[in-house]
Amino acid sequence: MPSIKAAIIGFGTVGEGVYKIVNEKRQQLKQHTGYSIEIASILVRDVNTKRAVAPSVLVTDSIDDILNDPEIDIIFEAIVDEEPAYTYLSQAIEKGIHIITANKKMFAKHGPALLKHAEFRDVQVGFEATTAGGIPIIRTIENLLAGDRVHRVQGILNGTSNFILTAMRDEGVTFEEALHHAQKKGFAEADPTDDISGSDAFYKLMVVSSLAFDEQPEWEEVSVVGIDHIQTDDVLEASKAELRYRHVAEIRIDDEGKLSGKVGPVLLDAEHPFYAIDGVDNAIIVETDYLGKLTLIGPGAGMYPTGSAMVADLVHIIRQLKPVPVLS
Amino acid sequence: MPSIKAAIIGFGTVGEGVYKIVNEKRQQLKQHTGYSIEIASILVRDVNTKRAVAPSVLVTDSIDDILNDPEIDIIFEAIVDEEPAYTYLSQAIEKGIHIITANKKMFAKHGPALLKHAEFRDVQVGFEATTAGGIPIIRTIENLLAGDRVHRVQGILNGTSNFILTAMRDEGVTFEEALHHAQKKGFAEADPTDDISGSDAFYKLMVVSSLAFDEQPEWEEVSVVGIDHIQTDDVLEASKAELRYRHVAEIRIDDEGKLSGKVGPVLLDAEHPFYAIDGVDNAIIVETDYLGKLTLIGPGAGMYPTGSAMVADLVHIIRQLKPVPVLS
Repeated sequence: MPSIKAAIIGFGTVGEGVYKIVNEKRQQLKQHTGYSIEIASILVRDVNTKRAVAPSVLVTDSIDDILNDPEIDIIFEAIVDEEPAYTYLSQAIEKGIHIITANKKMFAKHGPALLKHAEFRDVQVGFEATTAGGIPIIRTIENLLAGDRVHRVQGILNGTSNFILTAMRDEGVTFEEALHHAQKKGFAEADPTDDISGSDAFYKLMVVSSLAFDEQPEWEEVSVVGIDHIQTDDVLEASKAELRYRHVAEIRIDDEGKLSGKVGPVLLDAEHPFYAIDGVDNAIIVETDYLGKLTLIGPGAGMYPTGSAMVADLVHIIRQLKPVPVLS
Repeated sequence: MPSIKAAIIGFGTVGEGVYKIVNEKRQQLKQHTGYSIEIASILVRDVNTKRAVAPSVLVTDSIDDILNDPEIDIIFEAIVDEEPAYTYLSQAIEKGIHIITANKKMFAKHGPALLKHAEFRDVQVGFEATTAGGIPIIRTIENLLAGDRVHRVQGILNGTSNFILTAMRDEGVTFEEALHHAQKKGFAEADPTDDISGSDAFYKLMVVSSLAFDEQPEWEEVSVVGIDHIQTDDVLEASKAELRYRHVAEIRIDDEGKLSGKVGPVLLDAEHPFYAIDGVDNAIIVETDYLGKLTLIGPGAGMYPTGSAMVADLVHIIRQLKPVPVLS
């Protein structure tokens, strides 16, 4: 039985989710892919923190321990910031290591370069987890591109914003109270600026744009508005009129091939598929020439949903591997 | 440039959709798959009917013209009934021809046997178009199975029933008027029995069951209720209470591995993701261990949506093809 050795870079919620799923589903993954998968090493900031990790796993604070291990086939990257993630992944690709990332901020900016680099080095790049957590939006769009044409994508792409808007409506709490609640529940980052300012949704939209249209609009031409100016009174008044605020990111291509994108809150009625999307769920509508409108809804964050998206990338990458030549 | 020769069996709405998409997207398909794809022959009932088909395509009423053509690599099958579809596809597999089917009635019953046969003969089977038209539910579940576990699938799987329920609510028309309208629009079959009795949704549910759980419940143990007993007054009264009738098919597996399925109308409120699904749209909720609840919504029928699902299967099959050995 051939085996795959993987490393996890960044052991927060998502990294831990990947570790757990790979271990819990070891037998099933072996059966479906033909490979035995082992998490060999994990990069952390502080090696002294207690973690529920098997003693056989190398827990290190040095990236070199991972990049210089010639047995590592795949790296899962679940760091929040652009750097050092981009540098690490570039180095990994250069060494012929496949990469799977959940890092939207980094991938929005450097995804196109990483993909080119990876193609040149003949390695695979998985980025399903960068956008909409567990929802398989990347794979779905990728599959559509061979025989159809995407012309518009709209989404609720930030679970924290949606959670806050939902709490303001359902519980009548203030924006600050709802945000605090989201942080306590572990949905919002310690620094929630990217979530509530619309930047997080914007990064995801740019990842989708690169994939669906093979380019991104000029970043400064995309209007990005967050939810931080919305008052509870606005939300409750809308609710009385059976309308709901949703934070929606949208990218479209016109007949001349010009891209336009925008990110911000909108008011929707019960006929809209986004009306019923509450809490941390995400939702995306993809519009194409032949299929028409396809809507996907699911958990936009969380240890297991996002971890499962990275494991789905792992399976996909393994299935693309060229069979190892057998010496006869 | 290697090429693929395909035949279409059954040239109704769906078969014609496949023909159009393959021709309209010839260049794009070539670019994405590396293969030039040609529809070489089409099986029809009456060769004298006028059709918008290129003169180079063999239009025939004899299946032998297709099965005995050693150049045919793939067959698209879009016949409605169980037979002769099953016989034709069995013969095709026996000859090493890949098959792509949209025939839910046939595939619900014979899918497991066809898949075993295909595995033995080392050919591929695509059946995305059997269930929920253009929605990529089959590929999505297939991808989930490697690293996750599905425990429940719920769906609006019959577009005609949903169209009728929507028309009864929106226009206050009777069941018969709404059905007539659906037939005039080309959504319902000339014989709509399978649609309105729930059988069509049942067949699709059984296809999903085989895929998600590797087995089907005993057919006679699944309660199947259609929409033909629902009165306009019921629909309008529900609507006043902000409830909507939806025809929902459901299959689940319990912790002991026992399957249970049911098909029938239910009343839903605006919080349910199926509430906003109007007209001929389909919707499916897949529940898994890790991902949680994933909902897919899209066109459940139609020339282009269903045709696009078959073309997606084609692309997937081509990508699985083993590289042709090059003699050096």
